[in-house]
Amino acid sequence: MEIKLAQNYGFCFGVKRAIKIAEESPDSVTFGPLIHNKNEIERLKKNFNVGLVEDIDEVEENSKVIVRTHGIPKDKLQILKEKNVEVVNATCPFVTKPQEIVEKMSEEGYSIVIFGDRNHPEIKGVMSYAKDPIVVLDVAELEPQLSKLKEKVATVAQTTRKFEEYAKIVNFLMQHKKEVRVFNTICNATFENQSAARELSKEADVMIVIGGKNSSNTKQLFRICKENCPDSYLIENKEEIQPLWFEGKKLCGITAGASTPNWIIEEVIEKIKKIKV
Amino acid sequence: MEIKLAQNYGFCFGVKRAIKIAEESPDSVTFGPLIHNKNEIERLKKNFNVGLVEDIDEVEENSKVIVRTHGIPKDKLQILKEKNVEVVNATCPFVTKPQEIVEKMSEEGYSIVIFGDRNHPEIKGVMSYAKDPIVVLDVAELEPQLSKLKEKVATVAQTTRKFEEYAKIVNFLMQHKKEVRVFNTICNATFENQSAARELSKEADVMIVIGGKNSSNTKQLFRICKENCPDSYLIENKEEIQPLWFEGKKLCGITAGASTPNWIIEEVIEKIKKIKV
Ligand code: F3S
Ligand code: F3S
Repeated sequence: MEIKLAQNYGFCFGVKRAIKIAEESPDSVTFGPLIHNKNEIERLKKNFNVGLVEDIDEVEENSKVIVRTHGIPKDKLQILKEKNVEVVNATCPFVTKPQEIVEKMSEEGYSIVIFGDRNHPEIKGVMSYAKDPIVVLDVAELEPQLSKLKEKVATVAQTTRKFEEYAKIVNFLMQHKKEVRVFNTICNATFENQSAARELSKEADVMIVIGGKNSSNTKQLFRICKENCPDSYLIENKEEIQPLWFEGKKLCGITAGASTPNWIIEEVIEKIKKIKV
Repeated sequence: MEIKLAQNYGFCFGVKRAIKIAEESPDSVTFGPLIHNKNEIERLKKNFNVGLVEDIDEVEENSKVIVRTHGIPKDKLQILKEKNVEVVNATCPFVTKPQEIVEKMSEEGYSIVIFGDRNHPEIKGVMSYAKDPIVVLDVAELEPQLSKLKEKVATVAQTTRKFEEYAKIVNFLMQHKKEVRVFNTICNATFENQSAARELSKEADVMIVIGGKNSSNTKQLFRICKENCPDSYLIENKEEIQPLWFEGKKLCGITAGASTPNWIIEEVIEKIKKIKV
């Protein structure tokens, strides 16, 4: 039986990149959690001595500090740079982008509208690069603030937001303002895992989806696979594998949710390889 | 009985302005019809000797040439300027705007998408200021041309288009391109007549709507008035007025469709004034 991985699976580009940076910077600390994944953060601590610091005052002189995937506010980055520490920036390039955009647009005199959650680290970072940004989750929040905006508005979105919701905000803005400069900063990482799963599940005669059974993004992957390949199975780890699933199968496809670490995926593959079919 | 005109009625700002310019430039010709209104063009010819030339080669030396409300292509304007003629520009400022925008955005390296009808004089004019513009009426027309566009797109709309349709084009663009610079160049002249009619018809106890019975914009005005003032009447000219309508009334409101010339409106007012109530 052939085993084939989906073209995109598991961690997104930015998280993979940040983990690689952390692995290459042992004996360091991250300022704030590197990624939204507790197991992976523990693994980095155990295997690479990458620690975690939540308060900037706790960052020690002469240490190595990794900037988290979702970015940090401009003033915090400044403080780090002024301290006697080595700064390693693991901010996802797709998060750096909106930061740069709002900074430039503010300089050019545009009012800034950010579509996202003002309490999310990513948005806290992006906000810090803008002059008087307005941060909203929907049109209802935007409407009463419309008069604060100039006739020239630039807008960015949190990378993980839904496009349809962003479109509503843009429509509302263009209805009321002369110029709206729309930067589509939504990241299609999730979407890429889904379309890769769709492709592979059309080919495969058995599909294994690895991820948390409560993770909405893993469940969505499983639904897509099941549509195209009736013999699809959702597992959290190698322990759940049943040899029976693979009897008489020719191609086993594998995909994983966006928060599934690689080592879990690798263990699953190893175990499937050993099954006699 | 008091007679009150709606705050906005009849010709839009740009047409009124063009007519005034023409009246102040007697013994001239317009290059292409000044406005979309045959009667008014005939009146300008009769009262002010403002003629009409359709072919640029027919423009005579030492003559005075009026540029039409909807604008003309850049090269035609250039030819006029190079001829030994006096050029009087009656292009509506709301039409000059998209011309200027697409010219500037082309220079800045944006691909240009124009939402409108490529056969309409206004759009022919706007197109001529852009580098390789794509002109579309809907997403179906835009989709197959998407690959011709760069990742930076600027977009304008024909002044008379519906906002909802423009929003669809913008949504599609922002879904596929990194930056979409949206200039809302839709003119709200029609909308202004409607909201003024709405206001006035709430106050008035009789409403007269003057305009063509086949004109969709006049019929829409009439519908709005009728909603708020049951004694609303749609007439094409003073001959249709019935004194009975005004018996016991205190406030007569008057509005007119977007192609109703002022002299017809004035005749109606004169006639109503003479009615004993
Ligand atoms: S962290 Fe991941 S979800 Fe997108 S914005 Fe970066 S690739
Ligand atoms: S001609 Fe009239 S409809 Fe608007 S664009 Fe100018 S005011």
